[in-house]
Amino acid sequence: MELRDLGEFGLIARIRNVFPSTAPLGIGDDCAVLPGRKGFWLLATVDSQVEGVHFRVTLIPPFFVGRRLLVANLSDIAAMGGIPRHALLSFALREDTPFAWLNEVLQGVREEASRHGVEVVGGNLARTDGPAVLDLVLLGEVERDRPLLLRGNARPGDWIFVTGYPGEAKAGLILAERKMLKEQYRGLWQRFFAASPRLDVGRFLGALGERIALIDVSDGVLQDLGHILEESHVGAILYEDALPISPLLAQFCEEEGCDPREFVLRGGEDFELLFTVPPHRGEEIQEEIPQRFGLPVHRVGEIVQGTGVYLRREDALIPLVLRGFNHFSRKE
Amino acid sequence: MELRDLGEFGLIARIRNVFPSTAPLGIGDDCAVLPGRKGFWLLATVDSQVEGVHFRVTLIPPFFVGRRLLVANLSDIAAMGGIPRHALLSFALREDTPFAWLNEVLQGVREEASRHGVEVVGGNLARTDGPAVLDLVLLGEVERDRPLLLRGNARPGDWIFVTGYPGEAKAGLILAERKMLKEQYRGLWQRFFAASPRLDVGRFLGALGERIALIDVSDGVLQDLGHILEESHVGAILYEDALPISPLLAQFCEEEGCDPREFVLRGGEDFELLFTVPPHRGEEIQEEIPQRFGLPVHRVGEIVQGTGVYLRREDALIPLVLRGFNHFSRKE
Repeated sequence: MELRDLGEFGLIARIRNVFPSTAPLGIGDDCAVLPGRKGFWLLATVDSQVEGVHFRVTLIPPFFVGRRLLVANLSDIAAMGGIPRHALLSFALREDTPFAWLNEVLQGVREEASRHGVEVVGGNLARTDGPAVLDLVLLGEVERDRPLLLRGNARPGDWIFVTGYPGEAKAGLILAERKMLKEQYRGLWQRFFAASPRLDVGRFLGALGERIALIDVSDGVLQDLGHILEESHVGAILYEDALPISPLLAQFCEEEGCDPREFVLRGGEDFELLFTVPPHRGEEIQEEIPQRFGLPVHRVGEIVQGTGVYLRREDALIPLVLRGFNHFSRKE
Repeated sequence: MELRDLGEFGLIARIRNVFPSTAPLGIGDDCAVLPGRKGFWLLATVDSQVEGVHFRVTLIPPFFVGRRLLVANLSDIAAMGGIPRHALLSFALREDTPFAWLNEVLQGVREEASRHGVEVVGGNLARTDGPAVLDLVLLGEVERDRPLLLRGNARPGDWIFVTGYPGEAKAGLILAERKMLKEQYRGLWQRFFAASPRLDVGRFLGALGERIALIDVSDGVLQDLGHILEESHVGAILYEDALPISPLLAQFCEEEGCDPREFVLRGGEDFELLFTVPPHRGEEIQEEIPQRFGLPVHRVGEIVQGTGVYLRREDALIPLVLRGFNHFSRKE
């Protein structure tokens, strides 16, 4: 049996079996949650950018490879309502890598780090004879007197929200692959090159003191929603007419003859936040996030008993396949 | 300019310039030292095993790849006198990797983790189309009321000690490469496959409350001593007749016609501890470590003013080149 036969999530399930955890929170949420400074949990996460998989040297300027490396990790801290603090780098690089390339990667990490008050405090370098593998470890904190924003927190009746316009990054990737970085579509490819981690929204949600299930959209709304449903043992209905389609994505899809809803549901790497809240806090949250952060937030559905995700189209419920980006799967 | 023109340590120096740190301790020691639980510093380190560089799939059974991955990190915690606590894995793997291979790696991590009370609490999986890159992040703790065992702590007059018999692992690697795992040399190849991190010695040294410079021997005694000298702005004299050569290494080198002192000075991956102590504590430490831990400890030299390392042979002082394993250098 090879890894591709298991798929990324089958593999993670097996690894969880090898390492059953007694920590406050083991493998399976956006960050590990560990004892921290007085009054805080320590959050720890690690994410990688692999040459040829997450980035191609010819496609993404190295400065943005560095930014994305940190953004992916910052987004995991955001998904725990946390404050990012310290980072360590672990890079495996070929010895013929131009220093100028690496230096641009480091500058990208530095700019994003300084934007969010993160300090790079250590790391590791190794040689590889193959594609570069850039790992970044991010440590953060979240107050112990706040409820943790866990994937397992969703309950039937909860409202499902998503920030911003997921799907734009996927369109941006397509444009980048074609090297068609037209000014008209700057909004799309910028979201791919340099998404913003939603740390402020994560902090706001944590401060509410509510039972909130929160995840960041790295593999697509459907697949990431699937993680919430699995950990919470519930199902969901998404409202087709409420899926947030930005004017720019609509225009792109009209030109391309593609379905923008597919981009919203299955496009990854937007690093928006997807979350469920008890219905009595729904309207307040829907009003406050745009007011406070100038960021749209859309109610896209509701949590229901059962399993799976259904798309509500007028009076019909259409079952959806929970699929997005999956390492180790050719079915994607 | 390519990375091999800078070498591993030239590169690290440049990275340190990009990320000047205000944390208690930034880039440059065995672990990052960060604010931790009440009464503790948090220690964070990351280390990798790269296929084709640190291990070859045909040479090292995957169980030992997993053990070594954790051992290298445990050794960094040992070198700060710390207690290891939590680990995260970040693996970049080809999709045709047999699950059985990965599972053995995980079992190796698990065995070594449970031996030292470490819990694996999270991680990340990614696909690569090239050599596997296995990263492990290890978090640990050390008491705040103990002086940190920093590389910069050495002062002229200090005694230089090393535990065990460095150089054995290098001989073990040579035997493994030749697939000559003779029973007679089990002691050598076992040190390569499954070195023991010297956590107990690190804890003992930390508890002394002394000014001690400590590093683990991952790249060879000379090179790792060089890091202490650089951070402490001092030089060293090593006593040729005091270099610890185990009977097994002596026998191996007699058969092979090689110089065992070269193995002691430049062989890496033993994960022994190299440290300097003020002379008034020297004899006590020399007596106590073997008594407490059944582990030999050898006084191999002394710290002097100036720079560089000299080998004392009878009445002569022979300058040595500070070289050991260096990623990104063909001169090794």
